[in-house]
Amino acid sequence: MYSADDFAQAPAAPHPDLVRRLHEVVGDAGLVLDAEAQAPYLTDWLGKWRGRAALVVRPRDTAQTAAVVRICHESHTPIVVQGGNTGMSGGATPDASGAQVVLSLSRMTAIRAVDPINNTLTAEAGVLLANVQRSALEADRFFPLSLGSEGSCTIGGNLATNAGGIAVLRYGNTRDLVLGIEAVLPDGRVWNGLRALRKDNTGYDLRNLFIGSEGTLGIITAAVLKLFARPLGRATAWVGAASIESLVGLLADLRASAGERLVAFEMMSHDSLALVLQHVVDTRAPLEGAHAFHALVELADTRQDGLDELLESALGAALERGLANDVALSRSEAQSLAFWKIREGISQAQVRAGKAIKHDIALPISSLADFAHRAEAALRALRPAVRIVNFGHLGDGNLHYNVLVPADTTPAALAAETALLNRVVHDLVSHMGGSISAEHGVGQLRRDEMHHYKQPLELELMLRIKQALDPNQLMNPGKLL
Amino acid sequence: MYSADDFAQAPAAPHPDLVRRLHEVVGDAGLVLDAEAQAPYLTDWLGKWRGRAALVVRPRDTAQTAAVVRICHESHTPIVVQGGNTGMSGGATPDASGAQVVLSLSRMTAIRAVDPINNTLTAEAGVLLANVQRSALEADRFFPLSLGSEGSCTIGGNLATNAGGIAVLRYGNTRDLVLGIEAVLPDGRVWNGLRALRKDNTGYDLRNLFIGSEGTLGIITAAVLKLFARPLGRATAWVGAASIESLVGLLADLRASAGERLVAFEMMSHDSLALVLQHVVDTRAPLEGAHAFHALVELADTRQDGLDELLESALGAALERGLANDVALSRSEAQSLAFWKIREGISQAQVRAGKAIKHDIALPISSLADFAHRAEAALRALRPAVRIVNFGHLGDGNLHYNVLVPADTTPAALAAETALLNRVVHDLVSHMGGSISAEHGVGQLRRDEMHHYKQPLELELMLRIKQALDPNQLMNPGKLL
Repeated sequence: MYSADDFAQAPAAPHPDLVRRLHEVVGDAGLVLDAEAQAPYLTDWLGKWRGRAALVVRPRDTAQTAAVVRICHESHTPIVVQGGNTGMSGGATPDASGAQVVLSLSRMTAIRAVDPINNTLTAEAGVLLANVQRSALEADRFFPLSLGSEGSCTIGGNLATNAGGIAVLRYGNTRDLVLGIEAVLPDGRVWNGLRALRKDNTGYDLRNLFIGSEGTLGIITAAVLKLFARPLGRATAWVGAASIESLVGLLADLRASAGERLVAFEMMSHDSLALVLQHVVDTRAPLEGAHAFHALVELADTRQDGLDELLESALGAALERGLANDVALSRSEAQSLAFWKIREGISQAQVRAGKAIKHDIALPISSLADFAHRAEAALRALRPAVRIVNFGHLGDGNLHYNVLVPADTTPAALAAETALLNRVVHDLVSHMGGSISAEHGVGQLRRDEMHHYKQPLELELMLRIKQALDPNQLMNPGKLL
Repeated sequence: MYSADDFAQAPAAPHPDLVRRLHEVVGDAGLVLDAEAQAPYLTDWLGKWRGRAALVVRPRDTAQTAAVVRICHESHTPIVVQGGNTGMSGGATPDASGAQVVLSLSRMTAIRAVDPINNTLTAEAGVLLANVQRSALEADRFFPLSLGSEGSCTIGGNLATNAGGIAVLRYGNTRDLVLGIEAVLPDGRVWNGLRALRKDNTGYDLRNLFIGSEGTLGIITAAVLKLFARPLGRATAWVGAASIESLVGLLADLRASAGERLVAFEMMSHDSLALVLQHVVDTRAPLEGAHAFHALVELADTRQDGLDELLESALGAALERGLANDVALSRSEAQSLAFWKIREGISQAQVRAGKAIKHDIALPISSLADFAHRAEAALRALRPAVRIVNFGHLGDGNLHYNVLVPADTTPAALAAETALLNRVVHDLVSHMGGSISAEHGVGQLRRDEMHHYKQPLELELMLRIKQALDPNQLMNPGKLL
C-alpha cells in the first residue's frame, strides 16, 4: 500500500512515438496528457493507492480499444484497465513505474441492445451500473446487480471483478448474470463471444475465465446481461436476535417458507448498529432494547398480495421458536428506506469513527457463528479492547469483518497492525475453508496474501492460464497474481 | 460416426507393465480385462459409436484416480473418462486405436457431505444424478438438475458436459448449480477446489473451466453442489396455440406474472404430439381439436396456496389475448404426470417412427419463431416431404429440431442425408447467433462442425488453454477440439 507521498508526482515521459500512434487512433478526445487531468486516474477513490502512467487513453469503442491494445502489444507497453475506478483493492491503479498506460473504458457507454423477449441487455463496458438498471426498467425488466457504488461504477468493472453486492442471495454474483462477452485480447484481436443464449455447450467456458480476472487476461468491452421479471411486491423487516446462530436458523426457515422470494438477509452486530446511530444523521434504532445481532430481511415477488402476510407469519414463527427476539415489519416505503439507510450507513460510520482494518471474507453459512466466536477470541487475546464491526451479507456467507483503530493511528502503526490482524483473521478463514476476498477481488490489496493462502497447485494453474493468454505479461501486471 | 462393424472387435493388447502398475493401484475389483465385461464401456448407449480400449479401470476414490492418471501420464497413455455412459455425442467412447484407457468413475459413489444450513451437498463424480436428488430430499432440500437419464447418468458426467435438462429455465445449467470441484489434473496431481462458498473472488474461475470441458482438461472427481428450498406447491397446464410466436408471447407474460415460479415451459409441434400419440402407449391428447403448437407449462413454489389460481388467471389472460387457443389445467398429480409422459415420450416415439437426424440447438428466444419458419422453408426446398419433429425447452431457447427419415434408410444414405441437413440447419443457427450444441456437448458428434462454425480465434483460445493444462494431449483426445 502506497501513501500519497511515497514517490514523486512528476508526470511520466511517454515515448513520443507511442503518443503519436495512440493519438492517431483516439484523437484529442481520447488522450489525457495533462498532469492535473490525469490525476483522478492515478489513484483509487479511497486514496489508498497512487501510481503514475505513461498515458491515460480513453477509446470510444471496441475498434479503438483494439487498436490501442495492438499498439501497446507492439511496443511492449503494459496496460491497466479502468472503469468507474470504485474498486476496493487497487486493481485499477497503475504502479509507480510510469511505464503503464491507463486504458479507461468510461467513454464506451452504449447500450447496444435490449431484448425484453429474450430477457437480455447488451451493454458496453463503460455503462454505469445504474444506467444498466435504468435501461432494464425502461423495458419493464429488472437487472438485479446492486451495490453502494452503482451510480459511479461501470458494468465493465463489475465484470472484471465479478462484483457481488446486495442481491447475490437471490440472483448470484455478476458472473451469474452474464450470457456472453466481447473481449479485446492482449494482442489487440477481438473475441466476439456476445452470445445471447441460455444454453451453449460448444467448448470451454472462456466467458467465465475473463469475468473476475481483473483485467489480467484481456479487456471485456461489452456483455450480454440477463434480465429478470420486475419484482413489484416487496416486504421488509428488521429483526433483533441473540446470536448469529439464531439468525442462521432464521435464514434457513425463511428459505424454506419464502423460497426465492427472499432477496436480502443482511446482518449487523450491535456495535455496528451503534456506530451508525452515533455517526449517521437521521437514523434511529428500529427496535426497542438491545440485541446482540440484527438482520435486515427483505422479500420480493412479481406480486404484492400475500407477501406481507408471508413475512409476518414467518417472523412470528421465528419469535416463537426463539430465533428472533424482536421484529419490526416495515409498514411503508419510507420505513423500508430507513432500514436500508442503516445498513448502507455502516461504511460511512466507520470512516467517521476512525480507521478500519477491513476483511471481506466468505465462509460456509453453517460456519459463520463459529467463525465469529473464534475470530473475536483470537483478536481479544492480542488486543483486549478491540472494537469489531461485524456486518455483511449473511445470506451469502459474506462478512465484512472489520476492526476499528483510532483515527490518530500513524500510517506506520496502521500498516503493522493491519498485517498482524489480517493474518489472525485470514488464518482462521483459511483454516475454516473460507475465502479471504469474497467480493472485493485481489488487486494489489490481497496479492501477497494470495501467495500465502492459495494452494500452490491452484496458483500454478492460474499462472499457466495467464501465460497461455497473455504471454508478454502486459495486462494489468502487478495485480491479482 | 462409426458403425458396429467398422473395425475388428479383437481386444487390444495393453502393455503388461501398464496392467501390472494399474493393478497395484486398483486391484482386481478396479480392472476390467475380460472382453465381454469391457464391451459396455466401449460403446455409447445409443450404439452410435464403438471403440477399443487398452484397459478399463475403475478406481474407487480420488487417491486411486490420481494414481491411475499419474501412471497414464508417465506411460503416455491417453485417457477417456466415463460416468454413466449416457451421453448423446460420443464423448465418453474410446477411439479405435486400442491405445486409450477408459477410466470409469462409477465406483466413486460417496456423498461426502450434506449441509442443509449452507444448502450444499458434496458428491463424488460417480453418484447417480437420481441419488443426488434423493439425498437432497432426505435433508429436506432440493437439487433441481433433472434429465431423462437421471436414473443412470452420474453427476460427474453432468459436470463434464454441463448438462441441461428440464429445470434450466428456473435453476440454470449444471454449471449454475456448482460451488466447487475437486479435479485430478493430467499429470495425476489433485486440485482441491471443493469450496462451499457463495462468494469467492480470489483469482481465475478454474471451476468453470473444467465444467463442460468433456474430460479434455482433467477429471472432476467430486463437487460441492447447491441445494434449494423444496418446492412443495406445483401447478401444471397444457396449452394449445397457433404459433411459436404466441407461445413466446405467453412465456413473456408468464415470467412477468409468475416470476421465478415458472419452472418449465416445454414446447412441441403438432407433429411431435401426433408422433407420441401414435407410438407411445397410454397417451392421449390433452386438448380437443388441433393446435399447431403445444406447451407444457409448470409453476412451482415453496407453498401451494394461490398457485393454481395464479396459473389459471395467467392462462385465462392468454386466452383472451389470443396467445393461447385452448388450455387444460391439471387437476391432479396423475394428470400432470400424463402431460409429462407426452413430453418425455417424444424420444421414444421418434425411435419407433424411424430414424431421426437430430439437432440440439439454442437461439435467442426472440428468434425462435423466425428460425422455425426459415429452417422449415430451407428443408422443404431440399426435401418437400420432410417430417420435422420440432420440440424442446422453449423457455431456454433450446430446440430439439429433428428430421425423421424412414426406418429402412441405409447407413450410407443416412450419413449423407445427415451431413446435408445438418449443414442446412446449422448454417441457419450460426447465421442467427445460435449454438449448434445447446446441451448435448460436442464429443465426437459435433467436433468437425466445431471447426467449421466456431470463430478461429475462439478455437485458438481453447487450444491454448488445452495446451496449457494438458500439454501431452492425454485427456480424451479426439473429442471436443
